[in-house]
Amino acid sequence: MDVQLKPGERIDMLYSDQVHIIQSKDVFSFSLDAVLLANFANPRKSGRGLTVDLGTGNGAIPLFMAHKVQGKLLGVEIQPQLAEMAQRSVEMNELTDKIEILNADMRDIFETVRPGSADTVVSNPPYFSVDSEKTVMKEDEHYAIARHEIKADLALVTKTANKLLKNKAHFFMVHRPDRLFEIIDALRAAHLSPKKLQFVYPKPGSEANIVLIDAIKDGDGTGARILPPIITHNPDGSYRQEILDIYEGNQQHD
Amino acid sequence: MDVQLKPGERIDMLYSDQVHIIQSKDVFSFSLDAVLLANFANPRKSGRGLTVDLGTGNGAIPLFMAHKVQGKLLGVEIQPQLAEMAQRSVEMNELTDKIEILNADMRDIFETVRPGSADTVVSNPPYFSVDSEKTVMKEDEHYAIARHEIKADLALVTKTANKLLKNKAHFFMVHRPDRLFEIIDALRAAHLSPKKLQFVYPKPGSEANIVLIDAIKDGDGTGARILPPIITHNPDGSYRQEILDIYEGNQQHD
Repeated sequence: MDVQLKPGERIDMLYSDQVHIIQSKDVFSFSLDAVLLANFANPRKSGRGLTVDLGTGNGAIPLFMAHKVQGKLLGVEIQPQLAEMAQRSVEMNELTDKIEILNADMRDIFETVRPGSADTVVSNPPYFSVDSEKTVMKEDEHYAIARHEIKADLALVTKTANKLLKNKAHFFMVHRPDRLFEIIDALRAAHLSPKKLQFVYPKPGSEANIVLIDAIKDGDGTGARILPPIITHNPDGSYRQEILDIYEGNQQHD
Repeated sequence: MDVQLKPGERIDMLYSDQVHIIQSKDVFSFSLDAVLLANFANPRKSGRGLTVDLGTGNGAIPLFMAHKVQGKLLGVEIQPQLAEMAQRSVEMNELTDKIEILNADMRDIFETVRPGSADTVVSNPPYFSVDSEKTVMKEDEHYAIARHEIKADLALVTKTANKLLKNKAHFFMVHRPDRLFEIIDALRAAHLSPKKLQFVYPKPGSEANIVLIDAIKDGDGTGARILPPIITHNPDGSYRQEILDIYEGNQQHD
């Protein structure tokens, strides 16, 4: 397939080259967080029905989840340049039948998507609150919007997830553990009960730097489960085998 | 020193035989949880001032913390038989100058201890809510009271800790991760801000079965830290070296 790359763009591959994705160091590149979330999120009923990714960036999460979803994936992205990049990656992977990219503010998606119609919602939202971070102004605008709660904060993401989901359906999110208590508060305020947490540690002996969360719409609010720790890197800085397996798709692909 | 043991009692040792403790399979034995909490709790200012253990059982936590506390330790235990067992262990270790055992309901301790006088509070409280557990009636009464929220629940333990503590002083608790969200709620309701969590996993690849919590009285409620995971056992069921080191006191004793 003939792909048009713009200046600064490159194509990266995942799952032993089965998924190709357009990246741009200047505008947006997916991170390990997206790979971990796509691996963590387990849609019910083999992913029949609709899975929505709130803040899809260059479409990494729908692209990485496509193999385990039998139904449709909708990636919502507010930034036109990223949404367009995601769309080209979907076309390059010949997944236009399965993945739709919607260039919209998540405040406006109910003009397109019916409330209560999603079987699964996933999100790798902006991690940093705007008021706590003075560095935001130094960043490229595309990165700033993806990383800081400029256009969407925890309250908006969780409320939108709740409105999208069917009753008892799951919301999967990746975030920073230093905001764990705010995350739990935001989920509960949006009637999403956190059920499973998985902490990700950069090295043996290090504090966690990523948390994966599985919450249920209108769940009963008790019975937390803390899944086995994931340690991403060896002391020498190289990826550990469990991470290489995820990148290679050894845990997911046949 | 001459020690009087009652039927069913034995003496166990910790920290390369530096600490001796009277146990009874029939009445009460400390668990790994107490060892982990004593290792986790780091009193400020080298433990000058007062450290209180709420629900001390056979005194395991004050005995295991004595080496790192320069001030006084007070162990509060509601069950006379356990408090008396703790007292005999304190005497056996010649720690009567440092450790006091108070046989009291924690509702009544402010008859003895001044509110706002503790520099540190620790607790390994009953883990199981009474209504959720039907097994409670089958257990020996001593174990039932130590394990189930019959005499003290999360709300009482956290409120008591708050009332004991000086401003900005720390409360260290060990509990079960399946109650994590209730624990966080109870801490916050008692104006204790959880700051550090450490999850303990029984084996590689297993979900966490213990959580260690460090909370600050009147802290600001943001900035969670998730400390490195502790994995207690090898796949063959033996303790891992990091646990043996704690039991031997290699991390703490000179």
